[in-house]
Amino acid sequence: MYGGDGNHSYAKNSTYQRGLLDAATKIIEEEIATKLEIPTSSKHFCIADFGCATGSNSFPAMHAIIKDVKQKYKSAHLKTPEFYVYFNDVVSNDFNTLFSSLPPNRGYEVAAVPGDFHRCLLPPSSIHFAYSSCSLHWLMEVPKAAEGLKSPCRSGGEREEVYEGYLGQFERDLESFLKCRALEMVEGGIMALLIPGVPTYWDPQREFTSVSLAELLRSSLLDLTKKGRLSETKLAKFNLPYFFPTPEEVRVVLEKSKSFSIERMEILKSAALLSIDGYVACFRAAHQNMFSHKFGAETVDEIFDLLKMKLQTFPVFANPCNDKSIVVVAILKHSNV
Amino acid sequence: MYGGDGNHSYAKNSTYQRGLLDAATKIIEEEIATKLEIPTSSKHFCIADFGCATGSNSFPAMHAIIKDVKQKYKSAHLKTPEFYVYFNDVVSNDFNTLFSSLPPNRGYEVAAVPGDFHRCLLPPSSIHFAYSSCSLHWLMEVPKAAEGLKSPCRSGGEREEVYEGYLGQFERDLESFLKCRALEMVEGGIMALLIPGVPTYWDPQREFTSVSLAELLRSSLLDLTKKGRLSETKLAKFNLPYFFPTPEEVRVVLEKSKSFSIERMEILKSAALLSIDGYVACFRAAHQNMFSHKFGAETVDEIFDLLKMKLQTFPVFANPCNDKSIVVVAILKHSNV
Repeated sequence: MYGGDGNHSYAKNSTYQRGLLDAATKIIEEEIATKLEIPTSSKHFCIADFGCATGSNSFPAMHAIIKDVKQKYKSAHLKTPEFYVYFNDVVSNDFNTLFSSLPPNRGYEVAAVPGDFHRCLLPPSSIHFAYSSCSLHWLMEVPKAAEGLKSPCRSGGEREEVYEGYLGQFERDLESFLKCRALEMVEGGIMALLIPGVPTYWDPQREFTSVSLAELLRSSLLDLTKKGRLSETKLAKFNLPYFFPTPEEVRVVLEKSKSFSIERMEILKSAALLSIDGYVACFRAAHQNMFSHKFGAETVDEIFDLLKMKLQTFPVFANPCNDKSIVVVAILKHSNV
Repeated sequence: MYGGDGNHSYAKNSTYQRGLLDAATKIIEEEIATKLEIPTSSKHFCIADFGCATGSNSFPAMHAIIKDVKQKYKSAHLKTPEFYVYFNDVVSNDFNTLFSSLPPNRGYEVAAVPGDFHRCLLPPSSIHFAYSSCSLHWLMEVPKAAEGLKSPCRSGGEREEVYEGYLGQFERDLESFLKCRALEMVEGGIMALLIPGVPTYWDPQREFTSVSLAELLRSSLLDLTKKGRLSETKLAKFNLPYFFPTPEEVRVVLEKSKSFSIERMEILKSAALLSIDGYVACFRAAHQNMFSHKFGAETVDEIFDLLKMKLQTFPVFANPCNDKSIVVVAILKHSNV
């Protein structure tokens, strides 16, 4: 994610992600009230956010979770515990910005935990509540079959192989994530996952999803390569390192886990309605670092100018109500079954 | 501390602090071998460094401690535990630089814990080994009696009050530090403190200490204020927020603690011999952020140019062997007595 708090920063261009939280808050509140087991062996309560970026969407989420946990303790006539929040993201994440924008009087101590969340990062049995929003669609690596900016949506024989490559990588990554969290979380701990996804079907003439947007971004990158503006050699091994699963594809992986039970699964839509400029800004904040690093900082403006032009060409993108992207909310409970 | 890795950065100008580690390593090694109690209830081992700056001196210290702990486990025919290192410093510390310079293949997971170490920052009973080097002389606030850049060294009646103000603040701060660490550390855990200090007596004609250097820095700030280069109003409430104690002054506070026993106390000298330029660079790295914030970034060059001139005026500073500054190394064990 693009750091700092400038015009192109993730902090200023993640309204979409924020809109999700508002919708998910109610579900999390109910699940904490009914499913969370109050830890009997400790007077403190540790929460971890996996994929926190610079914190702007993480802080309100942590605030909401802590409010719900406090209520749970109060209902049980127990003293409010001390709260510790661990903010995780990749090593190159801008944690300085996160620290400098921590809410005052937040009522919890914090730590930043840098590193790939497909590995174990925290001491065993140290986390009571785990949270991850809009992060689990990022893949550890681009599947071999998709290299060279191959589209998982193209029709014909190739589509299958590319799509299967992406899906397989997503499944392996989510499995690794669950295995590590199972070690880090206490028994009875709750995990809330918000995973951006797509429905099984949408009508591309009248509707679009994040997959449609990613396709236009791919097409922008290909056009610029043909024009000689991006290096063909660099593109040969490249593709977008994320995958938007269907709810069913998420469920299959979660059900395989021997460490977590699915307490609830719901499909949400973000309450934020974005204009074309909004989509471009949101995509830019998410891709800027990657593209700067891969193709050079000077290419970024051009890439997103072209993406904007393409979005403007198709009338379907003019109305944000046509956006059929979803978010899969899964509430899991850690219990070795 | 000044972040990044530029010419004036702490990372590039803390040879003095690094020299101490080499001297302290042997003591820490012996104490871990003889005094550390291997935690029976956990398979992991957590170390916290309070006052880590951007990590350049912290990484070799953590490496040495982990090597010693591994050896201790090996001697006891126990499996090597998983290591977690918590790097603490103030919220404004440059943790991004710390994360980007983490040693590869370091064999431990990390977290950054931002905040004032005179408060509790970590979950109860979560730390097995605590370390703090060249940090505990920094005070939470400048004592009232010292405001207006009053010197704790000036002779006459005023000296007493200013000196007592500084000493009182140092004592209260160290007590707060110990109280918080007592909550955060497991029973039987070891703490290694390296506190920059001064001997009870030195001959200012032939010898100098960190106190002498701080005095020249005070005098530089006063000169620049008289010249109208620094704001008199800002100076009215200001003084250097640190105190270099004698070993006896440290011992008095440590002995009062009901949570820690003193296992060993030694007086060290840094092995690094600094030229005048070296002292100026070292002081600049430690003060640059504070002075920029207080008096404006444009004043920093002038302040340290003047300090250098003053150091060059007195022949005593030409020979680093005249530096009688010391470091008090204290090894404490957490045991509620």
